[in-house]
Amino acid sequence: MCQLLGMNSSKPAALGFSFEGFAERSSEHKDGWGIAFHTSDGCRLVTDHLSAADSPLADAVKRAPVKARNVVAHIRKATQGRIAPENSHPFTRTLWGRDWSFAHNGDLKDYAPAAGPFQPAGDTDSERAFCHLMSGLLQRFPHGAPPRSELVAALAGLAATIAAHGTFNFILSDGELLFAHCSTQLHYLIREYPFPVAQLVDCELDIDFSRHNHLDDRIAIIATAPLTRNEAWTAFAPGQLAMFSGGRAVDAAAPRRPTLIMAI
Amino acid sequence: MCQLLGMNSSKPAALGFSFEGFAERSSEHKDGWGIAFHTSDGCRLVTDHLSAADSPLADAVKRAPVKARNVVAHIRKATQGRIAPENSHPFTRTLWGRDWSFAHNGDLKDYAPAAGPFQPAGDTDSERAFCHLMSGLLQRFPHGAPPRSELVAALAGLAATIAAHGTFNFILSDGELLFAHCSTQLHYLIREYPFPVAQLVDCELDIDFSRHNHLDDRIAIIATAPLTRNEAWTAFAPGQLAMFSGGRAVDAAAPRRPTLIMAI
Repeated sequence: MCQLLGMNSSKPAALGFSFEGFAERSSEHKDGWGIAFHTSDGCRLVTDHLSAADSPLADAVKRAPVKARNVVAHIRKATQGRIAPENSHPFTRTLWGRDWSFAHNGDLKDYAPAAGPFQPAGDTDSERAFCHLMSGLLQRFPHGAPPRSELVAALAGLAATIAAHGTFNFILSDGELLFAHCSTQLHYLIREYPFPVAQLVDCELDIDFSRHNHLDDRIAIIATAPLTRNEAWTAFAPGQLAMFSGGRAVDAAAPRRPTLIMAI
Repeated sequence: MCQLLGMNSSKPAALGFSFEGFAERSSEHKDGWGIAFHTSDGCRLVTDHLSAADSPLADAVKRAPVKARNVVAHIRKATQGRIAPENSHPFTRTLWGRDWSFAHNGDLKDYAPAAGPFQPAGDTDSERAFCHLMSGLLQRFPHGAPPRSELVAALAGLAATIAAHGTFNFILSDGELLFAHCSTQLHYLIREYPFPVAQLVDCELDIDFSRHNHLDDRIAIIATAPLTRNEAWTAFAPGQLAMFSGGRAVDAAAPRRPTLIMAI
């Protein structure tokens, strides 16, 4: 199964440490990786067909000081679709003048949504689902972005429809907000003052975040499985859709219930 | 206008020196850049919305030892389409089991080809043209890749149809072959023994290729304008489509004439 990694931060931040541990997971997920960095003026995208652990581009990404408020990353183990650049996550589209990026973990069966205004370039279930989400939002709100509560409710409804076809864990960002949907497995962590010395699960590396962060920094990290061994990761509930802004979970919707519930 | 850079090499080679000079051109082409590396086992893609001269990712690409036999790169100055990730060149698609990448310099007017099996994800004239080329090749050769002479003739015909709508300089690769089509401005260079000490036009940097290459290395570099001041760049003729393999131009077709002519 693929692995997801997302970040939503109160201020532009580098993902180096978490990406280091995430990339170590690629020995079993060797069909490519990709990362979208949302910075104040747009979106940067890197995709690679090689294992992140073996990739000189991944090494460069670990070292490149790209600071972003939102990041969506993915390591792929192909279940549907050829190993091809157009099938690499994250996928990106523009809606309401914003760059959106999307990465999926799971497998959708018998999933052939009607053609909408957003069309896939490749042949994965994941890109079909992303286009379905984008088309659904545009059809519901054709004149521009709705208030956040309406946006998260609409996404929750669309996600529930798609999740009926199989496993649909995903991370989605429009550059300001980050959405995480759990179907079977997804965790998150809020890293804030007092900052810990965190130890990666996947390799012998630790980092003292108190030396790299300011008192008012706050960063949400979302990952398929916890990346560090000594921080308090929270498992999302199956069916939960959470919305992150400024490094905190601001709203969460259980997709089959219309009422919004606060996550923290 | 955008800038194109392509490489076709007899052996996997790094593009660092040429990319260094190419990236310097981005001060006037600051709407993003992208590069596709075709290696023996697939395709890697990096796209960025920022000027390559200012981009930490571009710095990383200059230093990352990604060796490829074919490279397609692009610096963008937007003429049509929003500055968005899905509008960044190179575009990629899979045809006949091969990864294809495509970058365009120019501007097509009143260009709305009929929908084919390959559909664009963004809203640029460039991606529409690439999908038109891919769809046209698949429709002509539905059972697999034809012999090279038939492939280059089909591409020449398709390119001529599209070029009727405006400026259509492009570089296209399937990972083994590299095609370059000149509408108004495109140059190439074959770098082989005896290797020179080359001096970049755009910055104070020179490199002694005899120290970095073997006697049997041969590399074709294709660029909108010559990148070095002391090498013999050849201008393509308007309307010319050239095919490169193993670091040399192996075939060229003038698109409005059915006869293939040898370039060298």
